Amino acid sequence: MTQPKVRFVPLGGIVGVTKNMYLYELYDADKLKDILIVDCGIGFPSAAELGVDLLIPDISYLADKKDKIRAILLTHGHEDHIGALPYHYEALGLPPLYTGKLTAMFIEKKLEEFNIIPDLTVVKLRKEYEFGGFKATFINTAHSIPDTHHIIIKTPIGTLYHGQDFKMDLTPPYGAPPDFYSMTKVGEEGVLALMSDALGAFREGMTLSESVVGESFEEEMRKTKGKFIMTTFASNISRIRQCAEAAVKFNRKIIFLGRTMTKNTESAKEIGYLPLPEKLIGDEREIMKLPPNKVCIIATGSQGQDGSAIAKMAQNQHRSIKIQAGDKIFFSSDPIPGNEEEVYAIIEQLALRGADVVYSDVSEQIHASGHGNIDDLKLLLRFTQPKYAIPIGSTIRHHMQYQNLCTELGMKRENVFLLNEGQTITFEGAGKARQSETIETQSIYVDAYGVGDIGNMVLRDRKTLSSEGIAVGVLIIDGQSKQMDVRIVSRGFVFEKGEQGLFDEAANIVKRVASNRLAPVGANEASMEIPSLKKEVIRELERYFKDQTGRMPLVIVEIIVA
Amino acid sequence: MTQPKVRFVPLGGIVGVTKNMYLYELYDADKLKDILIVDCGIGFPSAAELGVDLLIPDISYLADKKDKIRAILLTHGHEDHIGALPYHYEALGLPPLYTGKLTAMFIEKKLEEFNIIPDLTVVKLRKEYEFGGFKATFINTAHSIPDTHHIIIKTPIGTLYHGQDFKMDLTPPYGAPPDFYSMTKVGEEGVLALMSDALGAFREGMTLSESVVGESFEEEMRKTKGKFIMTTFASNISRIRQCAEAAVKFNRKIIFLGRTMTKNTESAKEIGYLPLPEKLIGDEREIMKLPPNKVCIIATGSQGQDGSAIAKMAQNQHRSIKIQAGDKIFFSSDPIPGNEEEVYAIIEQLALRGADVVYSDVSEQIHASGHGNIDDLKLLLRFTQPKYAIPIGSTIRHHMQYQNLCTELGMKRENVFLLNEGQTITFEGAGKARQSETIETQSIYVDAYGVGDIGNMVLRDRKTLSSEGIAVGVLIIDGQSKQMDVRIVSRGFVFEKGEQGLFDEAANIVKRVASNRLAPVGANEASMEIPSLKKEVIRELERYFKDQTGRMPLVIVEIIVA
Repeated sequence: MTQPKVRFVPLGGIVGVTKNMYLYELYDADKLKDILIVDCGIGFPSAAELGVDLLIPDISYLADKKDKIRAILLTHGHEDHIGALPYHYEALGLPPLYTGKLTAMFIEKKLEEFNIIPDLTVVKLRKEYEFGGFKATFINTAHSIPDTHHIIIKTPIGTLYHGQDFKMDLTPPYGAPPDFYSMTKVGEEGVLALMSDALGAFREGMTLSESVVGESFEEEMRKTKGKFIMTTFASNISRIRQCAEAAVKFNRKIIFLGRTMTKNTESAKEIGYLPLPEKLIGDEREIMKLPPNKVCIIATGSQGQDGSAIAKMAQNQHRSIKIQAGDKIFFSSDPIPGNEEEVYAIIEQLALRGADVVYSDVSEQIHASGHGNIDDLKLLLRFTQPKYAIPIGSTIRHHMQYQNLCTELGMKRENVFLLNEGQTITFEGAGKARQSETIETQSIYVDAYGVGDIGNMVLRDRKTLSSEGIAVGVLIIDGQSKQMDVRIVSRGFVFEKGEQGLFDEAANIVKRVASNRLAPVGANEASMEIPSLKKEVIRELERYFKDQTGRMPLVIVEIIVA
Repeated sequence: MTQPKVRFVPLGGIVGVTKNMYLYELYDADKLKDILIVDCGIGFPSAAELGVDLLIPDISYLADKKDKIRAILLTHGHEDHIGALPYHYEALGLPPLYTGKLTAMFIEKKLEEFNIIPDLTVVKLRKEYEFGGFKATFINTAHSIPDTHHIIIKTPIGTLYHGQDFKMDLTPPYGAPPDFYSMTKVGEEGVLALMSDALGAFREGMTLSESVVGESFEEEMRKTKGKFIMTTFASNISRIRQCAEAAVKFNRKIIFLGRTMTKNTESAKEIGYLPLPEKLIGDEREIMKLPPNKVCIIATGSQGQDGSAIAKMAQNQHRSIKIQAGDKIFFSSDPIPGNEEEVYAIIEQLALRGADVVYSDVSEQIHASGHGNIDDLKLLLRFTQPKYAIPIGSTIRHHMQYQNLCTELGMKRENVFLLNEGQTITFEGAGKARQSETIETQSIYVDAYGVGDIGNMVLRDRKTLSSEGIAVGVLIIDGQSKQMDVRIVSRGFVFEKGEQGLFDEAANIVKRVASNRLAPVGANEASMEIPSLKKEVIRELERYFKDQTGRMPLVIVEIIVA
């Protein structure tokens, strides 16, 4: 190559913690030669994005570049790093996937549901793989899931270190500690840029080891007379294993709840990452028959997700679990920034039902974050000694703080890039780096009905629905007799049975408005007037409801001329 | 070599923190070939060892092995690592010394006073030096003094890592951070045994960086209206520099007090480790003339040493410094275990004089220990991955706790050796290690008058002196006239001027006892009787003083026949 350049393109993960997807592009004299993709994860919607199940990265930029994609490398098996594969893998042209053992297993199961058979290679650590002009080496690190790896990417203009989602856990409960030798060796040889986790940039010291969590499970279980219920991310296999192992010690039957929880623990069991005695694995139907102190439920819902097992328990709507005094509910994961409100609401409900709720604000020991604190982050910087650094996988305030940490270690402030989604950095010869053109990206929402068809209007409506409810008026006009029938139903607005008068009067308003409009004209003409009639009826109902209740529900009106 | 063996012999430093001196011996078929010595430090006496200025290692074991000593390697410039050189260097046959730059400078100055010119090599880091069958490489680490190094010692049966006095400081204020690459590289290649610092084995997390201390100096100085007085170890050049640099910012004149403080700061200035504007360096005589808020005194005495500048200030006996309200006294070093009582006594006296005393119990930030906490210690273990570990340079409770840390990392408990002074470990082929024969060592005390002549009796006397005082009776008998003259003086017993009657009566007792004894014999015979007369006089005086005062001063009697 005569004039090689490398461009780093974050398609996601750069501002909202989740939805991680990064491109490394190799150019020769401005001609794109090879693309290496790292991770392809989903995003978790914020509270304002109602009814959205998840977000996925916008890959439209890649639409005409499929032939340049050499591989997708996956750092670890968390949803925000692999979860978008079912939506994007075919569209990206089914490129080869390279990753660790557990991650590979998760991906296989995930794509199976979509009838996709991936081209999947389980990597050998420290082995160099070639991808066009890139050479990539996976090395071990520690996180809250086994088989989490960093990736050393050698390029014609220098070495890039993809150092995401890690902590320098000196005593990981399962698997080897981080590969300090490879980290320092690549630093010794020279690293042009470090792409680093930054989520712990505000937390002093080093992150607690995952091993500490195991001890607190035992301690808490010993003190619990009722059901022991633990919730965490379904992909947090280490945490799940530690809780399950404590349950085995106390002879509690372990019941996994939630679809991904069941699926992931199955995968982990298959490859020996969750060795548990079969007789202690129970199923949901057994819960009510067992004495409470013989039950350990491991469930999804730690982020307060609506419809999750934990949310249903909080609302007393779970078909087989009633929360009682003496039960302990253990939130073993911090809320992802943005989810705090939902999580705390559920915690409150559970506490009101008499459960003893333990969560990270109460007990520091229960959630050893998977993400490194300040000293972990500084250690990686010292080990790899990069010229440039780019914080990724966090929010902007974390990125800014990470920049401060870099300067404390003597790096130049301008050598630490703070990027937004789609903003790119181009590395050139002689160790130069500069911010380059921005790639257009959009929020792609997914809900139960499809991908990407949820617009801003829909989200605004959902917002109103969530806070004020809805009232639907249906007006049926007999084309012959001009007789009118009005039905009004509502949800989330007022309790209908106690407010019959309100709705009777609302029906009268609809009839009056319609009569005034319809009187001068015939039925046929009437149907022409329907759009404007609709608007008027809506306006009148909105005004009426507001006068009577102070609320502004979403009002929908349907007019049917029969 | 056909049957090589290596023996590790701690001549000191293994139980009492200080007095560090270690031998690495190489044997071939039980025949001693080479000895490598690491460090040659003094010990600080405990409170029970009154009047002892310092302790030095007992090198009598080496008396007939001088020809086998290949070199003395010095890890860093603290007194407990180099301070015994003036006493032992000649006795050891003037072997070559290898060490870092600042340490070399300290050693040169130190030996100069004793008119010894050392054979001194300033090492190049990461360079391998050969010493008989040993190959040693110095690598950088961080501590509370610049140029602190770890030593990788390669032997025919495996690699030993001398990892003493360190912390994993990620932001050392001066000099490079620890050489993580070399630490992990040697671990990758295989380390048979790690000899490690263990003093922080009870402290959670990582030790604060020295840089944090610099910030608190500035903060405290900003708030101080009176004199700013800082005390730390005279060898703690980093700390001294940080305080001095803060003084420069606030335009305070810097005055160094204490012999070693003056000497060390001179050395550091010479090699550029203490760059300060000459006009801001003052001298003791100026203190009283300067406004208090223009003074920054940096003094010895942080360990509560009797006679130190700080102790004198506390007792209001310093010739040029009076402590006043508004003055701030900053103890920037933890008491060495055993010295707590003295330090707290002085702190109390200073506080009573109106000074604001800041010390580590009050403000965590002021003393970032030079020694690594649990995570620092674990990091070194993870980096070097030794088969065996030997904690050194701490007390036995630290060593036991270090053993626990090792087992947390998966090491076998029996692979961590807890040694007493003189207890040895022999490493053999095939990675075997066992405890071997013990070397006899004794406590060698040094005071102002000499080395090693302070026996247990002397210490017991000093103990009495310190708590009960002394009374000396002198009886002069005129050989001719038999006339007797008695003088009694005392110190630390009772206040003589107020107790003239007591001493007059004591003089009468001496005369009476002597007369009774002397009456029947002539003067010449009398001189024969003097030893037993002495004993009787002492007994009578002891009894009398005890009856009258309840105290038992040390009583000394001298009888002179003129």
